[in-house]
Amino acid sequence: MNLKQLSHMLSLSQTTVSRALNGYPEVNEETRRRVMDAAKRHGYRPNPSARRLATGKSGMIGYVLPTGNAVDIDPHFVEFLSGLGDYARSHELDLVLSPADADDQETTYRRIVANRQVDAVYISSPRPADRRLALVNTLGIPFIVHGRSEGFDFDYPYLDIDNEGAFHEAARLLVQLGHQRLALINGDDRETFAIHRERGVRRALAASGLTLGERHICSLTMTEENGYRAARRLLEESEAPTAIVCSSLIMALGVVRAVRDLGLTIPGDLSLIAHDDVFPWLRPENFPVPLSTTRSSIRLAGARVAERLAARISGLEEGARGEVWPVDLVVRGSVAGAPA
Amino acid sequence: MNLKQLSHMLSLSQTTVSRALNGYPEVNEETRRRVMDAAKRHGYRPNPSARRLATGKSGMIGYVLPTGNAVDIDPHFVEFLSGLGDYARSHELDLVLSPADADDQETTYRRIVANRQVDAVYISSPRPADRRLALVNTLGIPFIVHGRSEGFDFDYPYLDIDNEGAFHEAARLLVQLGHQRLALINGDDRETFAIHRERGVRRALAASGLTLGERHICSLTMTEENGYRAARRLLEESEAPTAIVCSSLIMALGVVRAVRDLGLTIPGDLSLIAHDDVFPWLRPENFPVPLSTTRSSIRLAGARVAERLAARISGLEEGARGEVWPVDLVVRGSVAGAPA
Repeated sequence: MNLKQLSHMLSLSQTTVSRALNGYPEVNEETRRRVMDAAKRHGYRPNPSARRLATGKSGMIGYVLPTGNAVDIDPHFVEFLSGLGDYARSHELDLVLSPADADDQETTYRRIVANRQVDAVYISSPRPADRRLALVNTLGIPFIVHGRSEGFDFDYPYLDIDNEGAFHEAARLLVQLGHQRLALINGDDRETFAIHRERGVRRALAASGLTLGERHICSLTMTEENGYRAARRLLEESEAPTAIVCSSLIMALGVVRAVRDLGLTIPGDLSLIAHDDVFPWLRPENFPVPLSTTRSSIRLAGARVAERLAARISGLEEGARGEVWPVDLVVRGSVAGAPA
Repeated sequence: MNLKQLSHMLSLSQTTVSRALNGYPEVNEETRRRVMDAAKRHGYRPNPSARRLATGKSGMIGYVLPTGNAVDIDPHFVEFLSGLGDYARSHELDLVLSPADADDQETTYRRIVANRQVDAVYISSPRPADRRLALVNTLGIPFIVHGRSEGFDFDYPYLDIDNEGAFHEAARLLVQLGHQRLALINGDDRETFAIHRERGVRRALAASGLTLGERHICSLTMTEENGYRAARRLLEESEAPTAIVCSSLIMALGVVRAVRDLGLTIPGDLSLIAHDDVFPWLRPENFPVPLSTTRSSIRLAGARVAERLAARISGLEEGARGEVWPVDLVVRGSVAGAPA
């Protein structure tokens, strides 16, 4: 049964039926109930075109996907997508990925907004003063930032985890265990999450009068190979660190390999803590020595981003609410007191 | 500048301008050139709505995304998406992910086709007699299958890699190195790729009068943990295999961990070959012992699927062409002669 047939059966206009199904106040309660009952009885579900007709909404949320030969999508995206997709399904929302040149995403944002192709967008991996954020804020489309930017004179809605707090706690534990030479193997430090993590480590060190040496901090794409290279370089120095905090589980695999290649052990020679987005393919408790982690489920974040986008589309959420999730510090066998 | 302004400036109807920009034969060459010149001069690019108006096309390709608590999206999807997105961008196509209950995808396929929401769809991870394939074939929307099904009495367009050939070659090499007890740690054997890989291994063994023991074959979600568990069980048997062929690099990580936990070595006690979709986050040459692989880039497959979908949408590709890519066998340190 389609909208036309349902309307005909009820002797109502298609517009009235659509509005009734979408809860518009112009439709009186009795009519609304009659329409809902008939829709239920005949298994009618409004399709996006009908919904669009009635509400001006597309039933789609958008994401501008940076692409190009030099661009790799982080594998954790599949977990974010699982969470987002699971919520979106239950609310009959689709996700439009609009591929864009990584260096020119503005054209694509303008296009999808101008075309009313999507009802809302989310932005991920933001940087300080992120131009995408300034742009969507101007364009007036509902949006949520997954992560945070910095340096704007306006507020905006976001969902972030407490990256600074998490890495502060991790570094603080290591300092309390007697480690004085810490290193940070970080992700791309043009992005806010990495800046916040570095800030957390520096703050924990400063509280004990320690500093993060210039050579003890690396900013890299989070692959196994980069983790290996960074760890080898760090551990072959004369003033090698006795503890490493690392921004990804996949990079931590490379750190573990470097430690083994150099004939060292975890945690005897090196304590290691890594961030875990909760990735079912690779579990920190299954590392050769169970890996201590700062842990936050990126799948739950995906679901929450979808939930808030849906709320913004329907007007249930307004304003610039920031939401910051605390992060667990999970201690396993990979940390110990500093070697004498 | 939008379509209306451009049309007004040229004193042409919007339909004529749209058709000229989209190369419709009804528009004469002189008008077409005049429109194209003006569009270029004023930086006008047809937006999807205009394109839709002129061509009846949405400029979107669709993918029905299975979701649910029990569903994990394989991390290699990010690489497929990178390739697909990169091609789609250059052809101004967006990708719509329509989340569906993993056990009831039919409703979603019917909806996106009925709404003309997308111009074409692709299907991934097909099974024999896959109902999604039968359905889209009936619905009459252009489609490509990434992978292959089996057991249909009609042909359909697909792009697949030679999974049977790849695993045949891998197993044949191991047999020639003197291995008589092989094991296969496979992915979900309800899917065709896994069935083809098993077939390849069995064929190689049969050629030397060998068989794959019932207990020497596992079908699992391709996580590190499952690779570990399967390998431990296999290697602790009395008739333990001396060689393992494994369907994923991430599972192979778990195999390597099991071998180490048991105090065994690769390739002294066990030869290992795994399939590599070419995943920049984890490289087989960086395994503790460099890992031999059957190798095929899933990113290139993503780009090719997008290319063929675009060709089918524009009518440049028709019919049921199957395309099967050969797979490289890359021999590294993880294989050696069978232990005496």
